[in-house]
Amino acid sequence: MNDLVEFFERSRVVVERVLEEFIEMAAIEPAVLREAVGWSLFGGGKRFRPALVLAVGEAFGASMNRLINSAVAVELIHTYSLVHDDLPAMDDDDLRRGRETCHVKFGEATAILAGDLLQVLASRAITDDRDLPDSVCVQLVSELATATSRMIAGQQMDLQSEGRQTASHDLEAIHKNKTGALICWSARAGALVGGANRDELRAITKYAATLGLLFQITDDILDVTQTADKLGKTAAKDIAAAKATYPGIHGLDRSRAMLVEIRAEALSYLDEIERPTEILAEMVDFIVRRES
Amino acid sequence: MNDLVEFFERSRVVVERVLEEFIEMAAIEPAVLREAVGWSLFGGGKRFRPALVLAVGEAFGASMNRLINSAVAVELIHTYSLVHDDLPAMDDDDLRRGRETCHVKFGEATAILAGDLLQVLASRAITDDRDLPDSVCVQLVSELATATSRMIAGQQMDLQSEGRQTASHDLEAIHKNKTGALICWSARAGALVGGANRDELRAITKYAATLGLLFQITDDILDVTQTADKLGKTAAKDIAAAKATYPGIHGLDRSRAMLVEIRAEALSYLDEIERPTEILAEMVDFIVRRES
Repeated sequence: MNDLVEFFERSRVVVERVLEEFIEMAAIEPAVLREAVGWSLFGGGKRFRPALVLAVGEAFGASMNRLINSAVAVELIHTYSLVHDDLPAMDDDDLRRGRETCHVKFGEATAILAGDLLQVLASRAITDDRDLPDSVCVQLVSELATATSRMIAGQQMDLQSEGRQTASHDLEAIHKNKTGALICWSARAGALVGGANRDELRAITKYAATLGLLFQITDDILDVTQTADKLGKTAAKDIAAAKATYPGIHGLDRSRAMLVEIRAEALSYLDEIERPTEILAEMVDFIVRRES
Repeated sequence: MNDLVEFFERSRVVVERVLEEFIEMAAIEPAVLREAVGWSLFGGGKRFRPALVLAVGEAFGASMNRLINSAVAVELIHTYSLVHDDLPAMDDDDLRRGRETCHVKFGEATAILAGDLLQVLASRAITDDRDLPDSVCVQLVSELATATSRMIAGQQMDLQSEGRQTASHDLEAIHKNKTGALICWSARAGALVGGANRDELRAITKYAATLGLLFQITDDILDVTQTADKLGKTAAKDIAAAKATYPGIHGLDRSRAMLVEIRAEALSYLDEIERPTEILAEMVDFIVRRES
């Protein structure tokens, strides 16, 4: 696990440095919009999605130079989605990672525009990448747009599920779209830049899908078992709003059993890939252990 | 002027047909999000920006097949911006083109997500275009992202100008970004797809910039001189909110004199291009005459 902790740290440092350079280069005007974007981007995120881009990319032998813009792009999309999801009309969250959310700090109008801008900047991160062939660029932008569409659909489904009984298959559809699509894109981006073949791409996509599911289930479990203080956000809020969660539908014990089953599935997909996937395997365990 | 009216009508019919096919193909879920996107897109817009893509593209000899996806993309971005600008936290408009705005009809959360989705779909419209070389695709997405960033910056500047005295150069900065950037992209997209050379691209960009300015000045004049009933939106609202407008800063007479000067400038840029630009010249007069 030490290798993974080191990998995450190394990845986080590079991603944040390049993100800072990228935002600096974008020369965002007016100042309040630049501040709102900076506030949202540099608030101590885990940078999990960029790390996944880099981990998969490195497994397929791609250089950091060719991977970093995709890593930056997915963090920009993820951050835009958090800014918009936190808005009063959506999840109405005042705190994220222990500090004020963008709309509390800068007002709703600026938060809407900052989210819009973060989404646009993700396209620019990829198209402005001079190290990638045009054909790869087009595929990455196209797949990122599809993944983002699915993320938006998932958020809409999630909002509609509030206060209602949610069936098990609806819950899965919500998360496959809301969090799964972007995690799948991250892994596929690394593989595409690394020149993965068709079978490898298929296996890495399935691996990423199970990873996304593990992420969501542990997230839901943490929401039930941890306090607001420890998480730095309004915890148990999902339950209060009767939102669809795994423990809410399946119970805590069954949710934990699901983690064990899906973990095995994730690792089986890695077995299909003849590349150095140790870090990718460690990521699976890292996520599963978050909640224990 | 009959040629232009015919051109606009022909262009509108094609753009709306392809927009409908594109939205159908996108298979948006859940249903309410699909309805909100459809409501916003098919509410009787003038389709001016798509018409500009097609008019410039045809002047440069590009086929409709190669132009139509850029035309669709810019209408998607324009529509997303209207949906978000109408939100209560932004311009707080209840009516657009004589009917309820997206958030009044579908609620704020759905309107935010529908706007987000429209923005994403614009990228897909371009990257999914199988008729364009990858290099042109990358340039179009990159320039569209830059234009959209500027549009967002312009909206932020506009919001900040409310209730304040706005200097003449600030007003110009607001509109160059808020409406000008996307109009310039439309013209450049047509020229790029049509294989314009460097000088032609420069001239067409300047032409489009003056066109955008004319559009904004006539828009501001119409807001002052027409009634809510005729415009189908809460007219004179900009003045009530003390927003920066051309008549507000320069007075009505000077604003009208500016139209004459800028019209001549627009036509002079077309003189630099040895292509059949008759329709482009007629567009200038069409805009100027909107207010008389």
